[in-house]
Amino acid sequence: MEGNLEALFRPKSIAVIGASEKPGKIGYAIMRNLVEYGYEGKIYPVNIKGVEIEINGRKFKSYKSILDVPDEVDMAVIVVPAKFVPQVVEEAGKKGVKVLPIISSGFGELGEEGKKVERQIVETAHRYGMRILGPNIFGVVYTPAKMNATFGPTDVMPGNLALISQSGALGIALMGWTILEKVGLSAVVSVGNKSDIDDADLLEFFKTDDNTKAILIYMEGVKDGRRFMEVAREVSKEKPIIIIKAGRSERGAKAAASHTGSLAGADKIYEAAFKQSGVLRALTIGEAFDWARTLSNLPEPEGENVVILTNGGGIGVMATDAAEEEGLHLYDDLEDLKVFANHMPPFGSYKNPVDLTGMAGAEAYEGAVRDALANPNMHSIAVLYCQTAVLDPRDLAKIVIREYNESGRKKPLVVAIVGGIEAKEAIDMLNEEGIPAYPEPERAIKSLAALYRWSNWKARQKKE
Amino acid sequence: MEGNLEALFRPKSIAVIGASEKPGKIGYAIMRNLVEYGYEGKIYPVNIKGVEIEINGRKFKSYKSILDVPDEVDMAVIVVPAKFVPQVVEEAGKKGVKVLPIISSGFGELGEEGKKVERQIVETAHRYGMRILGPNIFGVVYTPAKMNATFGPTDVMPGNLALISQSGALGIALMGWTILEKVGLSAVVSVGNKSDIDDADLLEFFKTDDNTKAILIYMEGVKDGRRFMEVAREVSKEKPIIIIKAGRSERGAKAAASHTGSLAGADKIYEAAFKQSGVLRALTIGEAFDWARTLSNLPEPEGENVVILTNGGGIGVMATDAAEEEGLHLYDDLEDLKVFANHMPPFGSYKNPVDLTGMAGAEAYEGAVRDALANPNMHSIAVLYCQTAVLDPRDLAKIVIREYNESGRKKPLVVAIVGGIEAKEAIDMLNEEGIPAYPEPERAIKSLAALYRWSNWKARQKKE
Repeated sequence: MEGNLEALFRPKSIAVIGASEKPGKIGYAIMRNLVEYGYEGKIYPVNIKGVEIEINGRKFKSYKSILDVPDEVDMAVIVVPAKFVPQVVEEAGKKGVKVLPIISSGFGELGEEGKKVERQIVETAHRYGMRILGPNIFGVVYTPAKMNATFGPTDVMPGNLALISQSGALGIALMGWTILEKVGLSAVVSVGNKSDIDDADLLEFFKTDDNTKAILIYMEGVKDGRRFMEVAREVSKEKPIIIIKAGRSERGAKAAASHTGSLAGADKIYEAAFKQSGVLRALTIGEAFDWARTLSNLPEPEGENVVILTNGGGIGVMATDAAEEEGLHLYDDLEDLKVFANHMPPFGSYKNPVDLTGMAGAEAYEGAVRDALANPNMHSIAVLYCQTAVLDPRDLAKIVIREYNESGRKKPLVVAIVGGIEAKEAIDMLNEEGIPAYPEPERAIKSLAALYRWSNWKARQKKE
Repeated sequence: MEGNLEALFRPKSIAVIGASEKPGKIGYAIMRNLVEYGYEGKIYPVNIKGVEIEINGRKFKSYKSILDVPDEVDMAVIVVPAKFVPQVVEEAGKKGVKVLPIISSGFGELGEEGKKVERQIVETAHRYGMRILGPNIFGVVYTPAKMNATFGPTDVMPGNLALISQSGALGIALMGWTILEKVGLSAVVSVGNKSDIDDADLLEFFKTDDNTKAILIYMEGVKDGRRFMEVAREVSKEKPIIIIKAGRSERGAKAAASHTGSLAGADKIYEAAFKQSGVLRALTIGEAFDWARTLSNLPEPEGENVVILTNGGGIGVMATDAAEEEGLHLYDDLEDLKVFANHMPPFGSYKNPVDLTGMAGAEAYEGAVRDALANPNMHSIAVLYCQTAVLDPRDLAKIVIREYNESGRKKPLVVAIVGGIEAKEAIDMLNEEGIPAYPEPERAIKSLAALYRWSNWKARQKKE
């Protein structure tokens, strides 16, 4: 059934079982997201009353049963109440469906009785060679296929990060957050009760998925810890995995236990296993996405030498503090660094951090960024900018985008811009182009450090 | 000359010496900000050519010398080139001006020669009983007087935080940032070369300023460290002081030394002195403003019991982790906490963190927030919300604003909302009303912890 994950992300046709004509219903929201996000395969609504469903003027005839659909169906999204799910799964099996995201809740999360039904559904599915995602999920998104089969926000920004969430509520909130914050996604997967498809299965899919460069998991617990860690370790050798797992503190772990039924006190075991598997554990949502921006967009560095370019002494010092705390190596060769003297007034400093001074305009940044990109001894670049009247931050963004593209994007480059609304716009412009940009110097440096941590772990694995 | 600081923040009349009729010039930008931000005192442009200056259709006759102004002048903002400054200061003295923000650069920051001129200017000023702010600054803002005498952004949001910046470039960028991020300010002061008025003088003013509840300083170094620390300690007993001082790491300190001429290696001394003086040292700009939101808006807690209300188990656990790491005490009395069972379905949890569940709507939050505010044993409240379809985050914001106002704002309350554009709008609504709101649970908890840290330090001082 390995191939069925392919059907989860690139289905040629999708049935929505429990589709609704009423805005406000989940069975309508999924239809609407499929249509509005531009899914190009066939969409077959299934509704017991056979109602007509209209989305943005486009009319869909619905079928009373999936067995009535006059075509092959790769994926069937199930939205009917829990008590009808076993029968619907049976019918989907007869139809030859490959994968079943089950949105419906009311199973294992309610207790033993629900868990039993859940196991029966999985047995039925496996008898027909089908895989199940969920139940108790908000759906699945795969941006390369223009498929948004969720009842979450519509306009997911395409990119290279795969997001997996065990929590439905937080997962939907994070989808909205990625749109607001311009984080590009390849996929969003709500795993819910993980009755069948689990994190390890998804990691294996994303390992070889060309559209995914990094994976971010919000996790409350895993069922088969050993397998997860083995798979995570293999995947980490190819692509970085970032995990948010709350419950580090004693009281936090207790609260998590009552919330998810996972073992309290197990956090230290997770921590050790993550480290061994090359998994990057982020302590907060913000940190996870900060790292993800850099890890899903940038190439690995070819060496340890980092160069910091700045127009503000203060933010240069802040970045230097962060770099030293994170164990990054600031490039030191003054003969090489001297090239930056061409782009600054006499009171600037070409010692790393390179202070182009508050007078630095478009030409200074253009020249300095170009020189840093061109020098093979400078392996990673952090471009910092403190908004001044000399250079509109949006113009700086354009310069960085152009220079980075022209250089072929061969080395990591991160940006931090401190300022007001124009700075925010510049940051958005850069992130939309896949150049990680942040409103604070430390966040840029720490994200670059996360890339180095993963890259260094990988290098150590190869030696062993 | 103590009273002259009053003239820096509440001048009855302002002269702009070096005012310009040309948009793009600093001497124009300051005139424009004064007019557009609504300063209600008299404005007298001084321009050697006596040009007419038009701002938004309002025409200002300019005077060729400040001595020609037919009125008393409390404050004269000086924008003329460095070489004319000594003469202008002399004339301002003759005119009886009280305080001189000197925007002009080209003094001590250039070296010994400039320092000499700087000292002469200060001598002249003191001879006439005047005080000098700067030189090499971007100006001063005092929102209660609707005065924006800077060439930075115009629309500073009024509030209770005084911001002092030694760096001009970063200070202007941070002004823009506060507008974007809805941080309310009482004052912005650019101190530049600190030839006369320094951080300690300003702290003494803000100590008794009713419009200021907290002070945030971006500092690169201080000249008279002993006096600063003494004053900071006294002020901290009344109002919290947050300081950002870069240069913690060895290399960062070296870079700072070359940038500002301050001593490298002195950071440990600063660190110890800050601690002793009750100063809260923030490690990043973001952290500083996170704390400032809470410290400038909320009352002190009357006890250690913190209650966390959430609709998402996951963010509740994250907040609990942060609370435990920061040494906050989560309230534990189940008899008292049981009241929250009224606002949740049976599978919710009234154990702190209180999980209202993903089904929590307006009524659940309204009831829970009201009960938490009413219970005298619950000393501080963190309201967390993970955006769901059940409750629009903006409606949650309205509920929290109403309940907090009706309770009389007697205990600390912080909010975190995770989600997309509506969540961001809700966060902005809360911050505009002076209720600290953040996009991540940990940031809310850490800010509350900063309030506790300061409050506990204060309590210890009283015992000694």
